[in-house]
Amino acid sequence: MKLNKTYRNLVSELQRIDCLKTAFELLEWDEQVNLPPGSGERRARELAALSEIIHRESTQERFADWLEELEAGSNGDSIECQAVLREARRNYDRAVKLSPEFVSRQATLNSHAYHAWADARKKGDYALFAPFLQKQLEMAKEEAAMVGYSEESAYDYHIDKHDPGLTAAFVDDIFSSLKTELLPLIRQIVDSPVKPDTSIFKGFPREGQEKLLKQISEKIGFDYTRGRIDTSVHPFCSGNGADTRMTTRYDINNPLNSLFSSIHESGHGLYEQGLPQEHLGTALGEAVGMAGHESQSRLWENQVGRSRGFWDYWEPVLRETFPDQLANISSGELFMAINAVNLIPIRVDSDEVTYNLHIILRFELEKKLFSGELAVKDLPEAWNDASQEIIGLRPRNVSEGCLQDTHWSGGAFGYFPSYCLGNMIAAQVWYAVKEVFPDIEEDFAKGEFGRLLNWLRENFHSKGRQYNTLELTRKVTGRELSPDGLIRYLKERYLPLYS
Amino acid sequence: MKLNKTYRNLVSELQRIDCLKTAFELLEWDEQVNLPPGSGERRARELAALSEIIHRESTQERFADWLEELEAGSNGDSIECQAVLREARRNYDRAVKLSPEFVSRQATLNSHAYHAWADARKKGDYALFAPFLQKQLEMAKEEAAMVGYSEESAYDYHIDKHDPGLTAAFVDDIFSSLKTELLPLIRQIVDSPVKPDTSIFKGFPREGQEKLLKQISEKIGFDYTRGRIDTSVHPFCSGNGADTRMTTRYDINNPLNSLFSSIHESGHGLYEQGLPQEHLGTALGEAVGMAGHESQSRLWENQVGRSRGFWDYWEPVLRETFPDQLANISSGELFMAINAVNLIPIRVDSDEVTYNLHIILRFELEKKLFSGELAVKDLPEAWNDASQEIIGLRPRNVSEGCLQDTHWSGGAFGYFPSYCLGNMIAAQVWYAVKEVFPDIEEDFAKGEFGRLLNWLRENFHSKGRQYNTLELTRKVTGRELSPDGLIRYLKERYLPLYS
Repeated sequence: MKLNKTYRNLVSELQRIDCLKTAFELLEWDEQVNLPPGSGERRARELAALSEIIHRESTQERFADWLEELEAGSNGDSIECQAVLREARRNYDRAVKLSPEFVSRQATLNSHAYHAWADARKKGDYALFAPFLQKQLEMAKEEAAMVGYSEESAYDYHIDKHDPGLTAAFVDDIFSSLKTELLPLIRQIVDSPVKPDTSIFKGFPREGQEKLLKQISEKIGFDYTRGRIDTSVHPFCSGNGADTRMTTRYDINNPLNSLFSSIHESGHGLYEQGLPQEHLGTALGEAVGMAGHESQSRLWENQVGRSRGFWDYWEPVLRETFPDQLANISSGELFMAINAVNLIPIRVDSDEVTYNLHIILRFELEKKLFSGELAVKDLPEAWNDASQEIIGLRPRNVSEGCLQDTHWSGGAFGYFPSYCLGNMIAAQVWYAVKEVFPDIEEDFAKGEFGRLLNWLRENFHSKGRQYNTLELTRKVTGRELSPDGLIRYLKERYLPLYS
Repeated sequence: MKLNKTYRNLVSELQRIDCLKTAFELLEWDEQVNLPPGSGERRARELAALSEIIHRESTQERFADWLEELEAGSNGDSIECQAVLREARRNYDRAVKLSPEFVSRQATLNSHAYHAWADARKKGDYALFAPFLQKQLEMAKEEAAMVGYSEESAYDYHIDKHDPGLTAAFVDDIFSSLKTELLPLIRQIVDSPVKPDTSIFKGFPREGQEKLLKQISEKIGFDYTRGRIDTSVHPFCSGNGADTRMTTRYDINNPLNSLFSSIHESGHGLYEQGLPQEHLGTALGEAVGMAGHESQSRLWENQVGRSRGFWDYWEPVLRETFPDQLANISSGELFMAINAVNLIPIRVDSDEVTYNLHIILRFELEKKLFSGELAVKDLPEAWNDASQEIIGLRPRNVSEGCLQDTHWSGGAFGYFPSYCLGNMIAAQVWYAVKEVFPDIEEDFAKGEFGRLLNWLRENFHSKGRQYNTLELTRKVTGRELSPDGLIRYLKERYLPLYS
């Protein structure tokens, strides 16, 4: 095409609105990192006001005219322009179906619900959060209906929101296949006589952990001149490549927690920083979806960060940082602790093998919440039953049961599946990389990560949202998305360690 | 009145827009406290986008209708309602005269200029900042003209912007009177054989300073459940009483710096937290102006914080926090260091006596920049000459000369005078308090600050912007604003110490 005036106007408006969105995201980041305890109500009002503005700007009538004009003449357009138009159309069509009042009410509810959840989780009292969750679920269904989804497919809408093109049925199928292979593998590992000891870490001062994780994240390529890392209750990564905000948390008796959570968040950060920065705010500068995003964080955390090569390089640095604390811990013990597999109730503390069960659990419950088969008031019991059935253990209380995660308190339904899909994509991408560079792990042992990062930049990051999750996976790996890569990877990594 | 529907609509809209304004302020706070060095350009775009939105929301046509309707029937209104209408009218009338394009361009320029200034100051290279300052001055004049001020009174507009009702001529008069009294007083002090030694402080770890300043600010009444303190290059206070963000900076060889800057910022914070919170966003919940704001920070920093009583209470705590560092420093030496008067080139490091000269210097230069008598390119030399003449010393370089302050880089002209006016108001308020509570300093020696704070809350903070600066000063102190209180206070505090 003709990058004509209308197209330029469209992009310029999308990019201006994107600046409002990252302002909104900064307020959310600040809410988790800095907000004084008594300032929640004010922040809720700020977020509501800003979300209403963003919605209004996103539904300007001239968008309809521009899109119509551009679509009419788009036959000869490049795939890039077509992607920009397609995403702009999708977002516009959805946004205009929501009322400003709805958007503002939802932002207010989410902010209130977040604080109610944090309080409920602290006190172990589900009743403090349940009324908020009830309202959020209702609004989530209302949102799906407004956008045009039938009552039966409301959950599809929320999955599609995070990963365009995916449906609950697709997730159901792929999770079933995964489960079939995964359960016996987990059985084999946890029944093994090999029992890594993760309680060997004691007294690792925060300063050392902080120094080390900055060294590692910088070495793998995170650019701290346009990003930072702070502390929050739950680690996350927000912002975009122009200003990437990661968080972690420190436990002096568990240095692997801050370390791996920050390698994970760095993976997210590397993806954001690798997206074409000049296209921020359009499909060309946006992540493909949540599953694709998670594939990048998982790949760095697991395929790279738990590999033998990686630790050949970093173990000496770790020992230099904590000479006394590691004096009585052997290399073997350390590496096994890094690759420990245990059945535990908390998702974020779980290993990469059993992690997938935690996601399947949440997916099953979300499906039932949306179908009406499960009432919000019955969630704690349903969670515990499902945990017993799927993971094989029963949480002792709601704080380590259905209140453990923040997602629902932010109104994010249909988000959890992307974590497990991300694991699958990560493994599949990993084997694609190994086909090109069979010796890639040798790089890690030398502290070199550029060859991997450049490959990901070129083949994955630079594509933005030109394709949807399934298309991009196919393009990058040459295969359809399936659990095969993940199962193969888990077997190759864990069976030798646990035999 | 009739708190009728139109009035409620007006207030509700003002409060919604105020939420957007504090979102904007948070982005600015974050820019100074957290922003990665390479993210400045993105933040500039975010601020520009948001400022344009705020401007657009503030100039909605229905405001005109609402104001007209309410003004027509406002004769029987309470003074509170009248104040809300008056301020809403003033802000609306000014806002509609500025174009959205102008507002966005100005926000972009300010953000760029801030980074250019920081760079220029660091490198001691005025040429890096001069082109930005030139543009900012031009925009400041353009703004005054758009709002309806004549070319000759452009500087009046900027003074009035910070302190409604004040003019350059008024400031000129009052500064002249002050100077006449102040210069011989300073001569007397600096010629005194008493020479406090401020270089006695060595090796005060940041952690101790942080702990201490939190203790002090909390004790004088700052509410940390709706506020926090962080670190920035220049200490400041932003946000409002719902979420008050103070900053300070630490120097291990100058613990008084973080201490007094944080007592100062706490004074600002106490004012914000003392404004009627239910009226945030209207004249009833807004500070009277910058001079009034500064009077509150100055009163706590100086009249309270440098008093004998205050240190009778805090000296033991200070010694407990830093036993070794203070072992060889006597009480007398400590108190004199706290009340040291020295002629130095840097405003923010100067004492409360000579500080006023730094402001007079800036006022003189701003006047000339606005009248055209002084060209931006000649500023460094003019600054040095004026410093020589007014303060009696010549800065060695631009970093300790005309680049020392951040204000102009943010486009804030006419702001500096409020600092000195604030000193005058603080002293005048102080004597008003002493008339009611002659024994107030005895409270401080017991670590009690509630009687003073409550008096300020009732007589000053709770009034919001119902009156302008001069009116409020008259109401609170029973006198017209004059330099008399400040001169009396400085004489009473410093002459006994320096004779």
